[in-house]
Amino acid sequence: MSAPRAAGEAVDNPRRPTLTQVAELAGVSLKTASRALNDEPNVAEATGARVRQAADLLGYRLNGIARELRRGATSALVGLVSGDLANPFYSAVASGIERELRQHGLQLVTANTDEDAELERALVEAFLERRVRALLVVPSGDRHEYLAIEGNRGVPFVFLDRPPDGLEADAVLIDNAGGARAAGEHLLSHGHRRIALVADLARMAPQRGRLDGFVQAMDAAGNDQWRPYLRTDVHDVHRAEETVRELLTRDPPPTALFTTNNRLTTGALRALRGHPAAPALIGFDDFDLADVIGTTVVAHDPVAMGREAARLAHRRISGFGGPAQTVIIPTEVVARGSGERAPA
Amino acid sequence: MSAPRAAGEAVDNPRRPTLTQVAELAGVSLKTASRALNDEPNVAEATGARVRQAADLLGYRLNGIARELRRGATSALVGLVSGDLANPFYSAVASGIERELRQHGLQLVTANTDEDAELERALVEAFLERRVRALLVVPSGDRHEYLAIEGNRGVPFVFLDRPPDGLEADAVLIDNAGGARAAGEHLLSHGHRRIALVADLARMAPQRGRLDGFVQAMDAAGNDQWRPYLRTDVHDVHRAEETVRELLTRDPPPTALFTTNNRLTTGALRALRGHPAAPALIGFDDFDLADVIGTTVVAHDPVAMGREAARLAHRRISGFGGPAQTVIIPTEVVARGSGERAPA
Repeated sequence: MSAPRAAGEAVDNPRRPTLTQVAELAGVSLKTASRALNDEPNVAEATGARVRQAADLLGYRLNGIARELRRGATSALVGLVSGDLANPFYSAVASGIERELRQHGLQLVTANTDEDAELERALVEAFLERRVRALLVVPSGDRHEYLAIEGNRGVPFVFLDRPPDGLEADAVLIDNAGGARAAGEHLLSHGHRRIALVADLARMAPQRGRLDGFVQAMDAAGNDQWRPYLRTDVHDVHRAEETVRELLTRDPPPTALFTTNNRLTTGALRALRGHPAAPALIGFDDFDLADVIGTTVVAHDPVAMGREAARLAHRRISGFGGPAQTVIIPTEVVARGSGERAPA
Repeated sequence: MSAPRAAGEAVDNPRRPTLTQVAELAGVSLKTASRALNDEPNVAEATGARVRQAADLLGYRLNGIARELRRGATSALVGLVSGDLANPFYSAVASGIERELRQHGLQLVTANTDEDAELERALVEAFLERRVRALLVVPSGDRHEYLAIEGNRGVPFVFLDRPPDGLEADAVLIDNAGGARAAGEHLLSHGHRRIALVADLARMAPQRGRLDGFVQAMDAAGNDQWRPYLRTDVHDVHRAEETVRELLTRDPPPTALFTTNNRLTTGALRALRGHPAAPALIGFDDFDLADVIGTTVVAHDPVAMGREAARLAHRRISGFGGPAQTVIIPTEVVARGSGERAPA
């Protein structure tokens, strides 16, 4: 997937005084200023006082997380192990985690498994060895491998997007069935019966939930005209585009499409570009520019998902010993035009 | 920025045998199977042989990086410190780094500074303490703070997107001036003179490069009709949308827009939605669905950027001691319609 970039994103706050300014005002080197403010040895008492006075004058504050990290004795790090760096879903989740952790003086460190269950386990162990305070995991596959980990050293685990299997742990999941049911009902209410379902790997728990929810909506309406248009195990943008092209050649063609994640929606949009009588389309997952394109989606909040996971982790770090909790992130259909087209 | 998600992204390869299957075939617990394959103590010789035989039969291979990580003595980790997790540019760069590192048995670990120079320095130190083999940094601001780091313990640094300042280090940068010059020339060649420039914070090096390149193109053509339409320090999607709306109310309005990063392009697209006589538009940075929307962009390859940075880091890890190298990632104008509209 090609990815956008925004340059000039990472900047320091211009109003925040820097260590360089403190050092200059105190007439010492940066290294000395840093040592003095971090209470490190080998700084003369008078020098230390001068540096602290300069810092006070400028309103310079040592960053709390920075100081914690520098102490090193108790780690301020929380680990996130997830599947795929190039997937913006994970970065949105991670940014939610990060923001929440920062409020508690904790810093997120992430590593990706590239969909490899064995590597996932090794990364979990590597993080545990490096003294993280908690571990958040988007499991990549065979969760049972976790049982082979030599004890978690009392470090709490939180699972994201997929339920823990064979492990008592906190989890944050999306209301996959509810969201897909709502999408199905939305298309039915606009008069569609021949609704194509384009889904990712059916053995993934979130995908199974979405399939189930969609079928529930069809069954409740007594509609089985969607069945010839079911396509599962479509795993990337390119195959989604091909699959939708193939569906459009059927006789009769489907009058509506439901794509069960953002990549599949992207593929569908490519297939439908310039189509004279495009079928209705609803995609699971909101995405950048869906408003500009006018794509109706089943939206949820991945940032909130990360925030909830961080909250659960922090509660455990703070000593909470109660039973494992599962938080469900709600979904909603956001109508933007493509899902409201009538059958051709 | 709202972020798309693709569920079912992270899956293990169905054809790849799992440790669970090895343990089942050998008739031992997962923990024992793991210990045997990792040559850990406390496994009876006969048991170890049975596990290895089962692994051979199933074609089970311990992941190389997983094994390295587990050994722990020499770390297989490489650190990336960058600005903002929610920015897909960073995840694309990181995925390029990750893929290249994997080929050398190295694992990427990332942390984000949230645009805080002091935190950036602490994270660099925290990674050094945790024995990373190399450090890749997208500097967030006042680079001089680096000089206060207590020696880099021989760990090589590679800078991404922004040149190192006050430090001899390898770097991977984008051809910002060249790309922006090409965008300016493209709009000029389609007859535009009143070209609005919507730019991010002018003090960021990549933004300065883009401003310079655009001005070079205008100067070379003897055109100064763009000057009333210069807008800098536009730092988010919302302000970009407002800025473009304001530009369109000018008399006369600009006939073309050049937005200097993806977020600003998103804002412009929102402002232009449904506009009866939209000006031409070129955005710096390619983005998902630009092909569907028909947006002309100055494209470059953030994944290649990450790959080059990882290559430079690996060369240093392997003992290369030559002078610091800077790799420039090229850009190209990708015409998709919006940049080829004639002046109204």
